[in-house]
Amino acid sequence: MDFEFIRPLLKSAETKVLLLVLDGLGGLPLEKGGSTALEAAATPHLDDLASRGLCGLHRPIGPGITPGSGPAHLGLFGYDPVKYQVGRGVLAALGIDFDLKPRDVAARGNFCTVDENGLVQDRRAGRISTDKNRELCSLLEKMTLPGVELFVKTVKEHRFLLVLRGENLTGQIGDTDPQNVNRKPLEPEPRSPDGARAAAMISKFVEQAAGILKDHSPANMVLLRGFSQRPEWPLFDEVFGMKAAAIAAYPMYLGLAKLVGMNTLPSVRSMDDALAGLKSNWPNYDFFYVHVKGPDSAGEDGDFHRRIRLIEEVDGYVPKIMELDPDVMIVTGDHSTPAVLKSHSWHPVPVVLWSRQCRPDCVERFGERACLSGGLGPYIPAVDLMPLALANALRLDKFGA
Amino acid sequence: MDFEFIRPLLKSAETKVLLLVLDGLGGLPLEKGGSTALEAAATPHLDDLASRGLCGLHRPIGPGITPGSGPAHLGLFGYDPVKYQVGRGVLAALGIDFDLKPRDVAARGNFCTVDENGLVQDRRAGRISTDKNRELCSLLEKMTLPGVELFVKTVKEHRFLLVLRGENLTGQIGDTDPQNVNRKPLEPEPRSPDGARAAAMISKFVEQAAGILKDHSPANMVLLRGFSQRPEWPLFDEVFGMKAAAIAAYPMYLGLAKLVGMNTLPSVRSMDDALAGLKSNWPNYDFFYVHVKGPDSAGEDGDFHRRIRLIEEVDGYVPKIMELDPDVMIVTGDHSTPAVLKSHSWHPVPVVLWSRQCRPDCVERFGERACLSGGLGPYIPAVDLMPLALANALRLDKFGA
Repeated sequence: MDFEFIRPLLKSAETKVLLLVLDGLGGLPLEKGGSTALEAAATPHLDDLASRGLCGLHRPIGPGITPGSGPAHLGLFGYDPVKYQVGRGVLAALGIDFDLKPRDVAARGNFCTVDENGLVQDRRAGRISTDKNRELCSLLEKMTLPGVELFVKTVKEHRFLLVLRGENLTGQIGDTDPQNVNRKPLEPEPRSPDGARAAAMISKFVEQAAGILKDHSPANMVLLRGFSQRPEWPLFDEVFGMKAAAIAAYPMYLGLAKLVGMNTLPSVRSMDDALAGLKSNWPNYDFFYVHVKGPDSAGEDGDFHRRIRLIEEVDGYVPKIMELDPDVMIVTGDHSTPAVLKSHSWHPVPVVLWSRQCRPDCVERFGERACLSGGLGPYIPAVDLMPLALANALRLDKFGA
Repeated sequence: MDFEFIRPLLKSAETKVLLLVLDGLGGLPLEKGGSTALEAAATPHLDDLASRGLCGLHRPIGPGITPGSGPAHLGLFGYDPVKYQVGRGVLAALGIDFDLKPRDVAARGNFCTVDENGLVQDRRAGRISTDKNRELCSLLEKMTLPGVELFVKTVKEHRFLLVLRGENLTGQIGDTDPQNVNRKPLEPEPRSPDGARAAAMISKFVEQAAGILKDHSPANMVLLRGFSQRPEWPLFDEVFGMKAAAIAAYPMYLGLAKLVGMNTLPSVRSMDDALAGLKSNWPNYDFFYVHVKGPDSAGEDGDFHRRIRLIEEVDGYVPKIMELDPDVMIVTGDHSTPAVLKSHSWHPVPVVLWSRQCRPDCVERFGERACLSGGLGPYIPAVDLMPLALANALRLDKFGA
């Protein structure tokens, strides 16, 4: 539902909503006729929640669309991920906890290899070490650009973050990454007139970078893409009337929560930390988002058995979380990351929503196939979960008389 | 589907569609692990219809949205309730069968109590008796406003309907109800330039009303909200190509049917009356909407067992209705009214659609959980039912060649 539709219906309540996101939760069987990791995992507590709650599978973005972490989370936060898009530069900044200011222009950078004619030979510069990356970033950061503050920050291996800070800059600039080898890096083209100044700065940056890096082969050039600025979106607490806190281990997920105006609690290292964070902050917020990275990482690594183990670990924490007595508890993933694909995928994601007011269905197991017959249906848009959470938290007035 | 999409596909047929609405049909179990009222009710005839028909659950408005009666019915009539919104003033007029003319401005009024400083102390004036309300309305109706005809009609207890009739009036006026106590009633502000004249009239009305009521404490002031005019919408028979008749006990539901241009049959007092109305008018219409209020009222009263009894009563009439030989029979609710919540709710609503052309599913019981696995799915938008009814009535041509 449109924010403008929801807003006049909001009413205050003392209820609390908890959204527990197991990153990449949805999966595929390892072999024909087998179970998914979630189905294979022993999850007595999630199964209990499923049998008392409302189950289904959500589609993060649209039919067949494999989401990145950004849009997948925005959907769960109730923000239409097609309407609310974040640039890759901004996501890169979130990922390394760079404190992006409102008008900063951020870009995702690659060190790459060019030949004597300036043609790209390796878009990733042989995946140089992160240490080498640090050395090069500090060289590049010494560069000066007129009237612009410059940040060049290491991400990992060949990847870095470029940020320009100054007046009259916008992210309306085309990529310099030609996306293929044997081509020259592209000139940074302004995509609209107000991108002209930033494009000129980027052009200077690339030119100087080429000079600085020329003896550092294989990392003798840079490619830039995803120029973008921090979006100014409606704030979560205004849109949904709940003061929200985010608990996560990785800066990316805390950063995504910050983008919609959630408060972020200190980064956690374990489920114990997350539980402690929930407990100590329980009185202060109406909405808690808890992010668990493990199942996704295991999926990306193709490690089906580690996925099982990590899901079972989270299951063990469900009763401890429920002891906090949330009024609405949602457990789901942001997307699927089947170990057999070793990547994010488009497959719908199991979800269970429990509240005292939910209408239980007949699902007794929390798994991909069991959830198909749940009351949320096999294909509910992820963005619909937030309005349902509000309703189940008794935070929505009637529409019309 | 958009009306403009449907219209060119309409074809005439001799078929008849019957929409039987059990108000507030959807429910929740009374206790954990229990059945809903519909599930607990003995409904052999609805179960038979379910086993021969197509079942599912519809969502009246959107995820988590609890509908009022107005938008809930408009959805069932095939009108997108977010696009086709009715003001509260107009709904109040419908509710007491006031013959609202096209340019009349209607508002919902409350008698309220103000203190010596004009601050609202009780927004409902201690819920004065309906008799007292009648006395006060007739006093207020004697008031004169320049160039405007005035109607002040009793609804119930503290509630009344105000209607202004005259030239250059619109409903573009803000509420005077401050919604909280210890505040003064608000000035009626025009929401657009063409609301200025009506706002000025309302201002005069409120001022005079204060004088007339000053010695009638606790009902010594009025609050007004939901200023609105009768909408001019596409007519049901033009949109769906069926001449429609509405059968209901309460003016509100007949009024909603009138808003979309249905004919209304004389108000009924019982299912026997409704059946008689159907029989005697059967040859004259293509579409019949029959409204049964009971399950909603019982839900609002928190009376789970009366809900069961009323649903069972309607079930007994299903064979008698089917003897009329409708080509399409739809049984559903406009929304859910769980007895445990004592109010309308956001929960999806069971629906069965039967026709000779429907593709039966595996549902054999008409109930919330059984319908989850039906062919209409667990979450079909209510507005989709009308096009499906048309198709099953063989009243839609092929789209494209």
